[in-house]
Amino acid sequence: MAARVTRGRRPGAPDTRAEVLAAARASFGEKGFRGTTIRGVASAAGVDPALVHHYFGTKDDLFIAALQIPVDPREVMAPVVAAGPDGAGERLLRTFLGVWDDPEVQPGLLAVARSMMSDDTAGLVRDAFLPVVVGPVLAALVRDRPEVRIPLVASQVVGIIVARYVVAFPAMAQMPAEDLVARIGPVLQHYLTGDLP
Amino acid sequence: MAARVTRGRRPGAPDTRAEVLAAARASFGEKGFRGTTIRGVASAAGVDPALVHHYFGTKDDLFIAALQIPVDPREVMAPVVAAGPDGAGERLLRTFLGVWDDPEVQPGLLAVARSMMSDDTAGLVRDAFLPVVVGPVLAALVRDRPEVRIPLVASQVVGIIVARYVVAFPAMAQMPAEDLVARIGPVLQHYLTGDLP
Repeated sequence: MAARVTRGRRPGAPDTRAEVLAAARASFGEKGFRGTTIRGVASAAGVDPALVHHYFGTKDDLFIAALQIPVDPREVMAPVVAAGPDGAGERLLRTFLGVWDDPEVQPGLLAVARSMMSDDTAGLVRDAFLPVVVGPVLAALVRDRPEVRIPLVASQVVGIIVARYVVAFPAMAQMPAEDLVARIGPVLQHYLTGDLP
Repeated sequence: MAARVTRGRRPGAPDTRAEVLAAARASFGEKGFRGTTIRGVASAAGVDPALVHHYFGTKDDLFIAALQIPVDPREVMAPVVAAGPDGAGERLLRTFLGVWDDPEVQPGLLAVARSMMSDDTAGLVRDAFLPVVVGPVLAALVRDRPEVRIPLVASQVVGIIVARYVVAFPAMAQMPAEDLVARIGPVLQHYLTGDLP
């Protein structure tokens, strides 16, 4: 930290933000979501905790920033969440495919998905991705037992990501989005609100 | 090839088999499944086509060998296939989880799964994995329209692999196998034999 001060860098310079983000990624990866604190990240980056809050907001926000997803799933899914559980399976999938099929956004999402499936980053994602990133989106849409329903929804959606975009099996990659919505949307609805053992 | 002969290596020596496999992997990756021939692989490896057949069987068998999966899905799934479409969703998933949850086999499967999701190997898998590896297993279990049903089954099963084993979200990794069978098995059954748009 002393070295940083003597280099004359101002807090708030562009590379300070990047250093905070790097410290956050390191901390989430090493200590997990629960073990990471804004204070600890600030200390590792040699800045004031208030600056971390200023740049990134809450710890949830910092985690989402650390994942470096090109879109914030909470924002993208806000209209789906607002419309409530009826028909949510199809709406959720239509919105999701709209983002992923967008050629402007897809390369960035694909990079995140590949990185999540590598050994290095899996730890960053493992503990907190469902509760922090996916949970808030789906919490308003599940009928009950979020601890059962959310992983089931996630397993089907992750499978679409991998089969359609990452490995890109032709039969999945070429299936029109509306066919996927019609065929898999009801399954997501079942996972969200149907009778489950 | 001449160089190999002068080095005095016999066809059938252990490293010949490995060279044929390497040539097969390169060919499937570069030319795709259709563009690959036993003759071409044999030529690239400097051996007789009959030796490739002797080692690996058909082109389908060679492809499965090239994927380096620790178990042959066709063998593992044979009892599920033999039992027919009724209840196949749950049986398929129970068998699948039995293999993946086996600590002896899981590391090898995980290595293949990670490699399939990397840029390098995706091409090897992209065109032929569903028709050659998954197709023969599921063909006897789908009611009709295999080109629609098989990718849907694959998308859900791939999602289980990634969510439970590759990224290993705790909520999925810790869900008892029989709970998964009870909750996702009916969805697989729906994809195999249910009414689909």
